[in-house]
Amino acid sequence: MSNAVNDSVDDSVDDGTIDISRRRLLGTVGAAGATGLLIGAAGGAGIAAAGDGSGTADASALTSVGATEVMFHGKHQAGITTPLQARGHLVAFDLAPGAGRKEAAALLRRWSATAKAVMAGRPSTGDTGIALDAGPSSLTVTFGFGRSFFDRTGLTARRPQQLDPLPAFSSDALDPKRSEGDLWVQIGADDALVAFHALRALQKDADGAARVRWQMNGFNRSAGATARPMTARNLMGQVDGTGNPKPTDADFDRRIFVPRGGQGAAGAQEWMAGGSYAVVRRIRMLLDDWEKLSLEKQEKVIGRRKADGAPLTGGSETTPLDLDKFGPDGKTVIPDNAHSRISAPEQNGGAAMLRRPFSFHDGIAADGTPDAGLLFVCWQADPLRGFVPVQRKLDRGDALSPFVRHEASGLFAVPGGAAEGEYVGQRLLES
Amino acid sequence: MSNAVNDSVDDSVDDGTIDISRRRLLGTVGAAGATGLLIGAAGGAGIAAAGDGSGTADASALTSVGATEVMFHGKHQAGITTPLQARGHLVAFDLAPGAGRKEAAALLRRWSATAKAVMAGRPSTGDTGIALDAGPSSLTVTFGFGRSFFDRTGLTARRPQQLDPLPAFSSDALDPKRSEGDLWVQIGADDALVAFHALRALQKDADGAARVRWQMNGFNRSAGATARPMTARNLMGQVDGTGNPKPTDADFDRRIFVPRGGQGAAGAQEWMAGGSYAVVRRIRMLLDDWEKLSLEKQEKVIGRRKADGAPLTGGSETTPLDLDKFGPDGKTVIPDNAHSRISAPEQNGGAAMLRRPFSFHDGIAADGTPDAGLLFVCWQADPLRGFVPVQRKLDRGDALSPFVRHEASGLFAVPGGAAEGEYVGQRLLES
Ligand code: HEM
Ligand code: HEM
Repeated sequence: MSNAVNDSVDDSVDDGTIDISRRRLLGTVGAAGATGLLIGAAGGAGIAAAGDGSGTADASALTSVGATEVMFHGKHQAGITTPLQARGHLVAFDLAPGAGRKEAAALLRRWSATAKAVMAGRPSTGDTGIALDAGPSSLTVTFGFGRSFFDRTGLTARRPQQLDPLPAFSSDALDPKRSEGDLWVQIGADDALVAFHALRALQKDADGAARVRWQMNGFNRSAGATARPMTARNLMGQVDGTGNPKPTDADFDRRIFVPRGGQGAAGAQEWMAGGSYAVVRRIRMLLDDWEKLSLEKQEKVIGRRKADGAPLTGGSETTPLDLDKFGPDGKTVIPDNAHSRISAPEQNGGAAMLRRPFSFHDGIAADGTPDAGLLFVCWQADPLRGFVPVQRKLDRGDALSPFVRHEASGLFAVPGGAAEGEYVGQRLLES
Repeated sequence: MSNAVNDSVDDSVDDGTIDISRRRLLGTVGAAGATGLLIGAAGGAGIAAAGDGSGTADASALTSVGATEVMFHGKHQAGITTPLQARGHLVAFDLAPGAGRKEAAALLRRWSATAKAVMAGRPSTGDTGIALDAGPSSLTVTFGFGRSFFDRTGLTARRPQQLDPLPAFSSDALDPKRSEGDLWVQIGADDALVAFHALRALQKDADGAARVRWQMNGFNRSAGATARPMTARNLMGQVDGTGNPKPTDADFDRRIFVPRGGQGAAGAQEWMAGGSYAVVRRIRMLLDDWEKLSLEKQEKVIGRRKADGAPLTGGSETTPLDLDKFGPDGKTVIPDNAHSRISAPEQNGGAAMLRRPFSFHDGIAADGTPDAGLLFVCWQADPLRGFVPVQRKLDRGDALSPFVRHEASGLFAVPGGAAEGEYVGQRLLES
């Protein structure tokens, strides 16, 4: 095992031989399955099984959910191209009254040390013991900065233009108390206790420096629930993630990660090199209405078959949509308002994002309505070439709109990964 | 594969050779691990891998979390001696205005058909597709009747005395809106989508006949998160489940399940044969206070070591507590108010229960307090010989009390399992 960075995707993007492992990285398949071994073996995936001499790296442990370890250090932060995990926590913090750049720097230093430890399956400072016995379980911790962070830390001049507020959309029903925030942390793991343990450790680190603004829980399919790795499903029952860009795509990096040298007039800063912008939306699904639709209508809403995610124009899940195919009724087979037509890059001047969501379910209200849906998280080098144009188009004519409600929103600058000896955000906070 | 009942524990309780698999059944170990194979092979565990010709029963699928199937039919309902699952939903329903015995019978018939289908990994009527692709994933669905159910259905005369309201405890801070209910359903699975799929299917079945009264979500360690099967941990970080009775204990059945022939004057009814009483408590953990305690103090609160669950009087996790051992300070090594001393059967006239909880975490409040703790579910043939005497004693002097708050409570009669061709509760509702 090496301390390989978690982004070696960049360095070997032309190597077609690891196509399958690449696809796995992007949530094209769901949680890793009983495939810690597969991922570890792929090498290029940058995910290694525990091999620190602790004796957990034998063949049987390798196949176990717990043994899969994601590297903390690397060009990019973990939790962006990492396969979907079974459990997730999203949490936003606001800096405490009086805390500024110095306190923020110290916090990010503590947080990075904790993230590095717990991602490796080691205890944190003042450990609570909640995750004792469990392996790293694919734990990832990802840190981001919200727009307000830059004012609070006296860094307004260095705020990327990409953090300009998202436009208002007609379908927004946003709760400001559950939106935005100075700091954002995404936690994912294939074990719920490992994820909760990390959440508590990071919250404790924040003590005095930052307070929780909002916190949300999510989940995806468990590792191994399907007989072979498959694309995730969401709570509407759809195969969700098929259209995601793949790291093997020539333009993957350019679309998802901020390049070194910045983005010129667009204004990204050098400290964001290797970073990405996360758009987070709590999207409630109106499941009672959705589930009343016939299967045929449900499939027309998306433009894909529910059973296997194949386009209504035929083929299998990975067959491209044929947007120009007409049916005997003289209408396009994939309807003009179908979600996958409207959101397709071809329809948006090439705008693309990497969607990496969790489902959420916060119980059933007294009127029987489930408080459930998608913790939509998408990643892009620039929201104006990703989320914004697509959501603008969806907002105008998406057949899915009557069945969803955007309830909270956040936009965060997620800096590049920390190099060995560095903490996340150091290039912003200490130069 | 056979349609073996899920309770063969009863039929082979003297077979020491399957001791290990027995212990697995009781949450002495956590979720099943990458051990579908192990459980399937144990045979006596009554859990079989899918082998219906669907092609999911090959060796590789057998090792997968998804392939483990728990039988619906049997002497006892599933979800009582089944190993802890990674994900759980508890949901209480009240019968709809105007619904009585007839509607309740029809509902239990629909529910049983749905439970049988989804536990086998098959779609339900009007399936939502949420769990498509996934295997049974150890799904269990367990049905119970609350005290009020008997009045609503005109069956008051047949209500077991065991459903008499639990006494009030001094530490209770119960929310009636999240307590009790006419009907109770416990759902558990090793996959969150499989569990949610079942929840939605059962809720749809209830339409018109019953409405959700309250609903709670829980979790346990994921299958495979530890290198070998281990007892669960709770969110205080303690090894939790060690002291549970084991099916190999001579008196296990007598303590946990209602015998055929009833309980004499105690008043259990013949329709409850093979059934059990579930006490459900939403116990909030005051984690901020708890985590401020030193490790030494935390261990004294329980009377066991945090790292491995061994008694403070020495040995390993399974070594019996030495309640009479004194330290150099002249005090008992396991303090007089230690939770595991007070709750030990020896201290309660032999009162015993099978604890089979889920942890819960419903987010972090704006003041930073996690809404987290234990969805405590315990099983016994008679609450007056299980939960009630133990909780009474704990209520008076448990060192754990300052760190927990009982926020909701339910007591439910969980009838025996349905025989082939029968639905759960039929012996009550149709005779
Ligand atoms: C609860 C809300 C949503 C649901 C249930 C949903 C569901 C889906 C489904 C089933 C697909 C087709 C399979 C796939 O390619 O993944 C899809 C594709 C896609 N969706 Fe969504 N989506 C939601 C919200 C959004 C939002 C808010 C955006 C961005 C503004 C978005 C952007 C996309 C994109 C870019 C694609 C891929 C299109 C392609 O390349 O073919 N979706 N979505
Ligand atoms: C959040 C609340 C609770 C926590 C964190 C907790 C934790 C523990 C722990 C760590 C143990 C020792 C390990 C074991 O034997 O499992 C234990 C034992 C036990 N607890 Fe609790 N417990 C809680 C509530 C309760 C309640 C409400 C009851 C019943 C009224 C109960 C009954 C028992 C019993 C019977 C034992 C086993 C004692 C023995 O046989 O040695 N516990 N508990």
